[in-house]
Amino acid sequence: MSSLPTGPGPTTPPPALPEGALRVVALGGIGEVGRNMTVFEFGGRLLIVDCGVLFPEDDQPGVDLILPDFRAIEDRLEDIDGLVLTHGHEDHIGAVPFLLRLVPDLKIYGSRFTNALLAAKAKEHRQRPNLIEVREGEHRKVGAFDLEFFAVNHSIPDALAVAIRTPAGVVLHTGDIKLDQLPLDGRLTDLAGFSRLGDEGVDLFCVDSTNAEVPGFVMPERDIGPVLDDVVRKVDQRVIVACFASHVHRVQQVLDAAVRHGRRVAFVGRSMVRNMGIAADLGLLNVPDGLLVNLDQAGDLPESKVLFVSTGSQGEPLSALSRMARGEHRQISIRSGDTVVLASSMIPGNETAVFGVVNGLTRLGANVVHQGNAKVHVSGHASAGELLYLYNAVRPSNVMPVHGEWKHLRANGELAVRTGVAPENVVIAEDGVVVDLVDGKASRTGRVEVGHVYVDGLSVGDVGESTLSDRLVLGEGGFIAITVAVDTNTGRAVTRPTVSGRGFSDDPKALDAVLPMVEMELARTEAEGITDTHRIAQAVRRVVGRWVADTYRRRPMIVPTVIPV
Amino acid sequence: MSSLPTGPGPTTPPPALPEGALRVVALGGIGEVGRNMTVFEFGGRLLIVDCGVLFPEDDQPGVDLILPDFRAIEDRLEDIDGLVLTHGHEDHIGAVPFLLRLVPDLKIYGSRFTNALLAAKAKEHRQRPNLIEVREGEHRKVGAFDLEFFAVNHSIPDALAVAIRTPAGVVLHTGDIKLDQLPLDGRLTDLAGFSRLGDEGVDLFCVDSTNAEVPGFVMPERDIGPVLDDVVRKVDQRVIVACFASHVHRVQQVLDAAVRHGRRVAFVGRSMVRNMGIAADLGLLNVPDGLLVNLDQAGDLPESKVLFVSTGSQGEPLSALSRMARGEHRQISIRSGDTVVLASSMIPGNETAVFGVVNGLTRLGANVVHQGNAKVHVSGHASAGELLYLYNAVRPSNVMPVHGEWKHLRANGELAVRTGVAPENVVIAEDGVVVDLVDGKASRTGRVEVGHVYVDGLSVGDVGESTLSDRLVLGEGGFIAITVAVDTNTGRAVTRPTVSGRGFSDDPKALDAVLPMVEMELARTEAEGITDTHRIAQAVRRVVGRWVADTYRRRPMIVPTVIPV
Repeated sequence: MSSLPTGPGPTTPPPALPEGALRVVALGGIGEVGRNMTVFEFGGRLLIVDCGVLFPEDDQPGVDLILPDFRAIEDRLEDIDGLVLTHGHEDHIGAVPFLLRLVPDLKIYGSRFTNALLAAKAKEHRQRPNLIEVREGEHRKVGAFDLEFFAVNHSIPDALAVAIRTPAGVVLHTGDIKLDQLPLDGRLTDLAGFSRLGDEGVDLFCVDSTNAEVPGFVMPERDIGPVLDDVVRKVDQRVIVACFASHVHRVQQVLDAAVRHGRRVAFVGRSMVRNMGIAADLGLLNVPDGLLVNLDQAGDLPESKVLFVSTGSQGEPLSALSRMARGEHRQISIRSGDTVVLASSMIPGNETAVFGVVNGLTRLGANVVHQGNAKVHVSGHASAGELLYLYNAVRPSNVMPVHGEWKHLRANGELAVRTGVAPENVVIAEDGVVVDLVDGKASRTGRVEVGHVYVDGLSVGDVGESTLSDRLVLGEGGFIAITVAVDTNTGRAVTRPTVSGRGFSDDPKALDAVLPMVEMELARTEAEGITDTHRIAQAVRRVVGRWVADTYRRRPMIVPTVIPV
Repeated sequence: MSSLPTGPGPTTPPPALPEGALRVVALGGIGEVGRNMTVFEFGGRLLIVDCGVLFPEDDQPGVDLILPDFRAIEDRLEDIDGLVLTHGHEDHIGAVPFLLRLVPDLKIYGSRFTNALLAAKAKEHRQRPNLIEVREGEHRKVGAFDLEFFAVNHSIPDALAVAIRTPAGVVLHTGDIKLDQLPLDGRLTDLAGFSRLGDEGVDLFCVDSTNAEVPGFVMPERDIGPVLDDVVRKVDQRVIVACFASHVHRVQQVLDAAVRHGRRVAFVGRSMVRNMGIAADLGLLNVPDGLLVNLDQAGDLPESKVLFVSTGSQGEPLSALSRMARGEHRQISIRSGDTVVLASSMIPGNETAVFGVVNGLTRLGANVVHQGNAKVHVSGHASAGELLYLYNAVRPSNVMPVHGEWKHLRANGELAVRTGVAPENVVIAEDGVVVDLVDGKASRTGRVEVGHVYVDGLSVGDVGESTLSDRLVLGEGGFIAITVAVDTNTGRAVTRPTVSGRGFSDDPKALDAVLPMVEMELARTEAEGITDTHRIAQAVRRVVGRWVADTYRRRPMIVPTVIPV
């Protein structure tokens, strides 16, 4: 239990930024896991780090994606000097196409693989972004900001941390990070570079909080190889391995196991095929000639000679793996003795879906190997032990935990304190909270408005809290619609009312009582001389709502329509 | 990887039960976690073990409870000799009031605490069930069935296993079980009794599968005591402990810690107050005089002198704890430095809700202690190591894993095989699969229909799959309603169409294009001489549905109403 400053922070707009000071505002990614986007301001100029999406929760039905809220910068688009992408995961690059709609010529700085993934995504949006390749060790001046990039190890190749130098001081932003000391590609997180920067003096350290609550250290990625090898070796039927479609090193180890045991490999799922193609083209994935087959060719091979690498490790209902678990996949039907490996984490909120897939596969006779019964996954984010290394290397004056929910941010802040950072120099700032670095001291000075921006189908932002609240009511209880045409001179109904319900009951007689009740109410409103259609509709809503609450103890939406004739 | 018989099993109705054979059918609880209910049949007579509820998932919106499907027995109610309740958890007793509606004079056999909890529940349903108290060690003839009861340790006091003897053989049903070797109340699971029964010969062993995938052993419940004590000792502000409202031994340890550190205790939440009252009355919970205070009294005490024991450990949105996390609780507002202990598991599917509560409390400044950062919970179900003890004690001829999803059932079956049970004598039978014990061999012989029976508000069963599917559509996309009155002689619209959408868009202009489109379509149907209101409605639905899919790429429900005048 520490003495960290707690509570959600200021609620009022920030003061004007003092000259020579640096301002930091997250428009997403703090207080939540996803849609990472942090805006740095110095001397009237802006630098953005990352621009990702968040995936919706159950209380956001029908939503496809959630974007960072651009309102805080939408009047200052011409002040943006550039966008830095730390790596190619969706929660860091997924919202870029939406930002490009506002700033088509935005200068985007990323590593080779990050830029390649973004280019592929932008192509789907028919955009050709202005991509500038940067690499570890490189210094680059971007407008008012002097940037330096550092190699970082994560669950995707070619990730970067970025140092941002301005006259206000030095900021180091880790992006997503871990400290695998035996990385598959030999590309270590540049702890030595961080130490050197620490010698120089880091004024503000923005640190990945995802696993701050997890004690100890993440096992090396390469330790998964022998486990996968063991599974493939023992099995003489089909093997299906599901993992994230951007986890090149995980897939590499699966391919290596397939090669060793004489299996050909088919990629399943659009994003898997696309990303592994990009990785192979860039030399990040080593695919021996003749190893890959397509799904039709795979179907012709003996069961002991094929291995599938599939998407769907999070139980996504439309994914190939979910369709296999339901027995609905066109080309792959699970048979007793097949082996399915979920070489992936379970993102919080996806548990029910993932377990549903595991149960479906098990029911069909598959042996399912997963994180719970074998070491087939390691996290991409530093655990507490690794974070201590980072703090001790960087020795920052101020710390701002990023990437995480409140419990993660706070746990991360407490780690900083244990390495000697003063508790009052740890700033916990959820989305929208303004942090100013003034004379070497970071503090929360105000708050800008940050909401959820929903993408549903083709449109952005028209689905808001009011629509979602209606959807929740409709989803819980359906609706009862009552329609009647009324003569607005007399207030008399000129048709019999129509009553229909959807999502209310399977019983065709469930609403039989409504019609006479509405007719009686209409007789009453007519007798009282009420001719206003709105008032008549309100009266109908009231009487039906009361009846359904009393009779069923339910709260469907009551939708009266009174047509004036 | 074992050679267990796999696949979901037969799909056809079972043959007639041979004379002298025993039939077993689960109407709930196998292939899922919850609504446990198993029916045993011998010589035309029926014995039921447990009758619980299942809590709904996200794809069952608006549903309050899910009941076992009584259809398989509803024509044979007079054949039921009795209902045995193994313990008082909701997933074992929650559906009894609904079965009592069909069989009001049902003979119900349960332990003292189980019966007391059921009596309290039945009272809310204005029922007075015929409760017969049984206890461990007791033999009792119930119609065609000779029963023997065994003490069992679980996360609620006074749990029982039951042996069912008929001329077809001996069945042992564990109920929910674990093997805490240092139980708080000294009441061990009767492994010696199981061994004695094993000497006699157990023909069918129905075994709790919940934790079959978890290696090793469950830590003793009493080891939580010192952890709780440590938390309470270190804190000088308020302490709030949330746990299940039936976990008497957990609450006992909290009370003991409060006593040691001079804190008074207030129970928060209706079920907590009720159940702990019952437990104290029966001598199962030791409450020193003067320890308890009510919420108002608690508010008057110094913060270091009070401890709250609350419901809400699963993140239930209406619970006291969730309201505290949102800052909406009337009497308890969380302050920086308060300590909240979640002394409970996280039931799969509740993760997001629980983490939401943890983040809300953390954001307000509370220190949150939970399973993830302290040993404040142990499971109530035997892990794999304990299950091996059970199999080795009982040495059954046939095994039928119960209480669990497919992955649990299969893991449990594999444990049985490892202790020497022949793989072909392990029957994995999901809900509705009929298992017959004939001449000492159990096998799956058929299937009876078993569906989900939903309780929504006051009514049972009228909400079915069609209503739920409508709710899912409405919840994802809302609806667009178009209403028009049409002269059925001419097919001409006599009003302008009314267009309204709910749960579709926050943008008031989103549906502006619909009215002219519908008017054009109505002109077309009129011109074609279409006067049938159903056909006109279909035409309107088609044109609006196509437009919304093209324009928005969304699928709201389209609800056309054509009123004949």
